[in-house]
Amino acid sequence: MQFQLTKEFIDQLKDRVASEDSAWIHKNVLELHHADIADVLDELSHEEAKHVYYLSSEELQADILMDLQEENRDRLIESLSTKELADQIENLDSDDAADILGELPEDKIQEVISQMQDDAAAEDIIDLLNYDEDIAGGLMQKEFLKVELDWPVNRALRQLRRQAEDVERVYNIFVTDAEEHLLGVLSLKRLLIANSTTKIAELYNSKNIISVKTSETPEQVAVLMEKYDLVTVPVVDYQNKLVGRITLDDVMDYLKEEVDKDFQLATGISEPMQSDASIWAIAKARLPWLIIGLAGGILGAKVISGFELSIASIPELAFFIPLITAMGGNVGVQSSAIVVQSLARGEQQIGGILSKIWKETLVGIVNGILLSLLIFGIATVFGGIELGLVVSISLFTVIIVAAIFGTFIPLILNKYKVDPALATGPFITTMNDVVGLFIYFSIGLLIFSLMA
Amino acid sequence: MQFQLTKEFIDQLKDRVASEDSAWIHKNVLELHHADIADVLDELSHEEAKHVYYLSSEELQADILMDLQEENRDRLIESLSTKELADQIENLDSDDAADILGELPEDKIQEVISQMQDDAAAEDIIDLLNYDEDIAGGLMQKEFLKVELDWPVNRALRQLRRQAEDVERVYNIFVTDAEEHLLGVLSLKRLLIANSTTKIAELYNSKNIISVKTSETPEQVAVLMEKYDLVTVPVVDYQNKLVGRITLDDVMDYLKEEVDKDFQLATGISEPMQSDASIWAIAKARLPWLIIGLAGGILGAKVISGFELSIASIPELAFFIPLITAMGGNVGVQSSAIVVQSLARGEQQIGGILSKIWKETLVGIVNGILLSLLIFGIATVFGGIELGLVVSISLFTVIIVAAIFGTFIPLILNKYKVDPALATGPFITTMNDVVGLFIYFSIGLLIFSLMA
Repeated sequence: MQFQLTKEFIDQLKDRVASEDSAWIHKNVLELHHADIADVLDELSHEEAKHVYYLSSEELQADILMDLQEENRDRLIESLSTKELADQIENLDSDDAADILGELPEDKIQEVISQMQDDAAAEDIIDLLNYDEDIAGGLMQKEFLKVELDWPVNRALRQLRRQAEDVERVYNIFVTDAEEHLLGVLSLKRLLIANSTTKIAELYNSKNIISVKTSETPEQVAVLMEKYDLVTVPVVDYQNKLVGRITLDDVMDYLKEEVDKDFQLATGISEPMQSDASIWAIAKARLPWLIIGLAGGILGAKVISGFELSIASIPELAFFIPLITAMGGNVGVQSSAIVVQSLARGEQQIGGILSKIWKETLVGIVNGILLSLLIFGIATVFGGIELGLVVSISLFTVIIVAAIFGTFIPLILNKYKVDPALATGPFITTMNDVVGLFIYFSIGLLIFSLMA
Repeated sequence: MQFQLTKEFIDQLKDRVASEDSAWIHKNVLELHHADIADVLDELSHEEAKHVYYLSSEELQADILMDLQEENRDRLIESLSTKELADQIENLDSDDAADILGELPEDKIQEVISQMQDDAAAEDIIDLLNYDEDIAGGLMQKEFLKVELDWPVNRALRQLRRQAEDVERVYNIFVTDAEEHLLGVLSLKRLLIANSTTKIAELYNSKNIISVKTSETPEQVAVLMEKYDLVTVPVVDYQNKLVGRITLDDVMDYLKEEVDKDFQLATGISEPMQSDASIWAIAKARLPWLIIGLAGGILGAKVISGFELSIASIPELAFFIPLITAMGGNVGVQSSAIVVQSLARGEQQIGGILSKIWKETLVGIVNGILLSLLIFGIATVFGGIELGLVVSISLFTVIIVAAIFGTFIPLILNKYKVDPALATGPFITTMNDVVGLFIYFSIGLLIFSLMA
């Protein structure tokens, strides 16, 4: 029964939009789930999308808006009047409303808020706009259910009915004292089972309450929610007063962006790209990493040119250049990936940097010995026992150096608040190339002159 | 107030376990959240962990069990008697219970189930054991809330109170007919607001109901839950009968494993590793990729050795070997990463493989021209205009070939049901190395012989 987006459907819709066939659009588009409608609109031109958008109900418009791709959403918002935007904002959850308003210039924000009918909603949004996007306060929403400790169940239910009108999805209920200090959590299940005169104080759970402060990072919130299997977490201020809640889907969206960003750093793409971006935009986003690679290659050329005479007399030395650089790169990426992953998981670094480096060095020694023995025989076939010795000794050295660099660099980047995922990308392979070449040719020069 | 795991705490706990100080352990460990207790036990020896585990209540034991690291959990389960395990299983959600039983040998499963007191729970678990781990049926749990269409609100509430005793977390309520066919969803919020004599039929939402079939893949479930912002999704059989529900945290756990796996493939580690695994286990997990790299390096050596005479007479050719291989690798990884990401997101591949390859080729041409112009000047300084021409022409060719390979290979892998993330790893860089070297030396030979 699930909707499948096809090219035929889009083509047909474009025709219907051109012929202003509202009945067809209502029946075939606006009955869909809002996430599907947004997917459909993302495939239309701006004018066509606007046409369909204005045919939908006000509430549906707000939902569609949140599900559109960012650039399409921005363009649509620009074309709305201040009043229209204010109406949309009122239909959104406070966190989504604040996200949308936060992108607008200061004076436009003021204008939109002044046009809102619901003063309480406006106040919530103004409050949320105070928080940075990248802290818990910027992720939270003001819609949540709350009961006080000394209420009986029937009063709590009455209050909850009123509160529930604003809360789109109910997962659990926060318990506070009369001054809004967070005291615990009450599951809907317990409330459903309880007697109507029982006091909340007898029902709620006050043990091991997990909450986050407004100033915590989204990573900290995500680690917490995952560890404690939470669908929603209460947000408190410095006095432990309840100010909002964060739901798992918001954190998931944030995390997904982070994972994408890490992946992009690891694979050398400097910024996230829509798959329909222009050729030039895509090319530009990749260029910085390629230029780093080029610079590394030029440095490598400089290193090798320093050994030009050796190559002229022993051209076999050149055979194993790609092997040395590739292995240095592979080992370095493996080590750095492990560190980056454990940092991203928020693992406590018991034992500190030195013990990690020592462990990676040991792993390097084990693999280095195995691979060096393997390559010794093969390189000897290619160019005699001298070449065998040169390649195997340098491979062993390069593997250990790469393992140490691969561990060290992301940890250092992390210490100085740079995203450590940077180190899994072209950065570390480039560096290892240059260092590896230097090691290889130095050892080559040494061994061939010793054995000559 | 959140618990912080420290080395001091673990050392102190080890002492208390040795002196069997149960009071201290109760107060300082067993009062913690079960996720924290599991973290603590993961730092202890097997015997110490068992000691603390047996001090905790039966219900807490089950929660701790699920949160332990896999190898520690397996060892603990092995040391439990069949009766003890049956008691633990009864305290778990049906999906967790089935996961644990599913790892045991057939006869042990039978034994444990026969020792269970709760027949309904045993039946649920037996049902779940029928499903593969990697389909929706293997992710779902049998605990959910369900009301029938023609019940009034008060009857529904009575029924829900009974059902809620088994359901740990309540998010929404599924609506069926008397034959269990899924008809829609009812939010708790609507039930809270409604009059007690209103029929469910008047309250529930039957529009755009999202459900999954037992046979769908976890990826499909995840894409659906993310797209439609669902915290829980009903699972139906082929007759659209409601058989279970999947919650977001289960899908998140699955997705996280997948992301980790992709990252590990991209960075060349063959299997997930606990950070406290032994040196030898870590080394072994990385070895396969390193051997691929080594094989690539040997192939590269073979290619270069075919051009030994050229190198002997023009040693400058060797200078730019690392540049060519590094750039081929970087471009290839960039292209494949984009494809892998769009496949992982479940993006519909409108336009097909050819249009993707064409787009990447165009991006390759743009960046190829820019970088080739840059390197032409630099290589000319190193070794004259011939070398400048060789390096820039081959760099241009290698970039385009790498872009095409990088796009093509993950798409092909995906078509043949191999994880496309394989293509972002050492695999593609190794292949591009060999192809790039062949292009470089062929063009080198051609141009130097033409200009000689």
